[in-house]
Amino acid sequence: MTALIVECDTGTNLAARIAATSLRHTHRVIRAASNGRPTVRPSYEKGTMMSASDSTVAGRRFMLGVLAAMPALPTLFSATIAQAQTDPLASWNDGPAKQAILDFVKSTTDRASSNYVPPEDRIATFDQDGTLWVEHPLYTQAFFALDRVHEMAPKHPEWKSREPFKAVLANDLPALAHFSERDWAEIVFVTHAGMSQAEFLDIATKWIATAKHPRFKRPFTELVYQPMTEVLGYLRANQFSTYIVTGGGQDFVRAYSKKVYSIPTQNVIGSSLVTKYEIRNGEPELMRLPKLFFDNNYGGKPVGIDTFIGRRATAAFGNSTGDQQMLEYTKAGAGARLSMLVLHDDDKREFAYGPAQGLPDTKVGTFTQALYDEATKGGWSVISMKNDWKRIFAVEA
Amino acid sequence: MTALIVECDTGTNLAARIAATSLRHTHRVIRAASNGRPTVRPSYEKGTMMSASDSTVAGRRFMLGVLAAMPALPTLFSATIAQAQTDPLASWNDGPAKQAILDFVKSTTDRASSNYVPPEDRIATFDQDGTLWVEHPLYTQAFFALDRVHEMAPKHPEWKSREPFKAVLANDLPALAHFSERDWAEIVFVTHAGMSQAEFLDIATKWIATAKHPRFKRPFTELVYQPMTEVLGYLRANQFSTYIVTGGGQDFVRAYSKKVYSIPTQNVIGSSLVTKYEIRNGEPELMRLPKLFFDNNYGGKPVGIDTFIGRRATAAFGNSTGDQQMLEYTKAGAGARLSMLVLHDDDKREFAYGPAQGLPDTKVGTFTQALYDEATKGGWSVISMKNDWKRIFAVEA
Repeated sequence: MTALIVECDTGTNLAARIAATSLRHTHRVIRAASNGRPTVRPSYEKGTMMSASDSTVAGRRFMLGVLAAMPALPTLFSATIAQAQTDPLASWNDGPAKQAILDFVKSTTDRASSNYVPPEDRIATFDQDGTLWVEHPLYTQAFFALDRVHEMAPKHPEWKSREPFKAVLANDLPALAHFSERDWAEIVFVTHAGMSQAEFLDIATKWIATAKHPRFKRPFTELVYQPMTEVLGYLRANQFSTYIVTGGGQDFVRAYSKKVYSIPTQNVIGSSLVTKYEIRNGEPELMRLPKLFFDNNYGGKPVGIDTFIGRRATAAFGNSTGDQQMLEYTKAGAGARLSMLVLHDDDKREFAYGPAQGLPDTKVGTFTQALYDEATKGGWSVISMKNDWKRIFAVEA
Repeated sequence: MTALIVECDTGTNLAARIAATSLRHTHRVIRAASNGRPTVRPSYEKGTMMSASDSTVAGRRFMLGVLAAMPALPTLFSATIAQAQTDPLASWNDGPAKQAILDFVKSTTDRASSNYVPPEDRIATFDQDGTLWVEHPLYTQAFFALDRVHEMAPKHPEWKSREPFKAVLANDLPALAHFSERDWAEIVFVTHAGMSQAEFLDIATKWIATAKHPRFKRPFTELVYQPMTEVLGYLRANQFSTYIVTGGGQDFVRAYSKKVYSIPTQNVIGSSLVTKYEIRNGEPELMRLPKLFFDNNYGGKPVGIDTFIGRRATAAFGNSTGDQQMLEYTKAGAGARLSMLVLHDDDKREFAYGPAQGLPDTKVGTFTQALYDEATKGGWSVISMKNDWKRIFAVEA
């Protein structure tokens, strides 16, 4: 897989350029084109892929092991443990965003409250890219698609002279920056369809285990936001069901959701391709076709939530215009509802983009001023990465 | 709602005729056309709608209350309780079908067994019509659609002179028996679309609370098969997640699934219409469009299971050719898998139809000899209602 990593790094400079320029349609197409549903549970080797939460747990176990062998337990360590136990949102600075989460959980789980929600109706939905993990300079799945083109190229000699593949293989950044929606759709269909669900799961699982982020030089799966991992855990500890509701590919995310977010496949709702039941070599298979089945973006998010869950969410978290309808629909429900948006305003520790609040514009995870105003008007909470988060990742990158 | 019940009874004679004759396409169209996802949880009044399991529980509670007030607990009653506690499938006669269920659960939950399945992978899928409850002379949802035409007629005076509505309103049985697939699609789209998800949920909830089955003169929701209620409970007690996977309308079934089967909305996978997110009078709504989104029948069942759950089922239950692919796909998985078919061979206590095993032919829930042979070849179990079930309903009809 070394070659793949090299390609990933190559693709990265390219990706940075794509993000910096304006690729109008990348967003929708890339986010709406995976459908590799697992039929076999993914097995990850320890070490090759370690999630943010895993590394924390492993680290803690290791420390406890060392400390147990020592003559006395240091006071400092006890204090840290105690703090972690008392503050479920330890990576959050005190402020209105943290308080909104604490108040919401208190209110909806207190039987004496008029906002009490029975456990079976406690549903929390989370966008993934830019809300749970890094999405810049480009969606992780876009890196996957570009890497797949490089990897598949030897079997497609015609790509050397055929666009849009020619530009991808030549790392022709200016050409890529001007790809049309149709170009991207062609790349996604070629890289995400034509195999069975089981085969796609295997491909995605292997890729995510080794691919690294260009800037942070770490596996993408380590670039999960620690404060959001804490929110997921805190809500689950309070009997909320947590769902990922992503514009990205449902089956791509399902390849690692359990390992990375402790979210099982059935709680991942995303965009998907049409699949077809077929008997292949005497075995029934679900084959992935190069055709969009469902676009789980914008107004598609409340539709996806309703189709999969059958009820309105109680809490919803997002970070871009693609999440607006989900947050709006959630907030419009009766009783206490929590709608929150992550604002990427921390270019030192992560990235800064909007264009809300005068931040740099972007086509990847756009947070417009109009969305910001909508949030203010509707009583949603905006999370400032810079001010609200004590740290960004479990392992500081 | 009295008028509705009268209409239901009228529709029933009509329905019996439809079932008796050959309506080639009724099955697919009726089963593939509902999409009313609840946004508000249904509230049922006790007494107006009582599920099979509820009435059992309520009956037991009532008996216990009476008995507690008596000087001594009768021995007979203690024995009944004891038997119910020791035999999770008390309504099943001893035989290969019952044994197959017991063996499967034992094998998949025993850590020492090579067939052990971890709890998170214990997934059991159940067809609804003809597998969990009565489907003859016509699917419950077909009665609902015909009743809706009658109910909506005053606002559609043009229907008096326009087919296929004219025939429905005139109870013109010969005409109805020859409806084309397009006629049925028109009826379903008119009766199931054009309103919000919340409105459809309300309509379906009210209808199911009062409508009665023509032959048994009981609410449809009391015509759940008690032996299957026991299987659902037995599997759940052994940490299986139970899902309904129906060719019928996902949103129609979600209106009563929790109450009737203890299955929450997110565990109901069915056919659905396209829905669209809209702001209506300042409120966000999901509107139902007269267009099929997903046909959860035949090869659509494994696709639906994979789309919603993301993994293959461990056990699957069905009763007709529409379930063949689901059972086939389930059985093809590694390790112990259970695929079972209910054969309706009991015209005294319920209905008899196949045409497998020389039973009368039908277009509603067809169980062909080819399917029977497939079951034999593939090691699936066939449940004989006549021989395997001690009783059919919780309350004898």
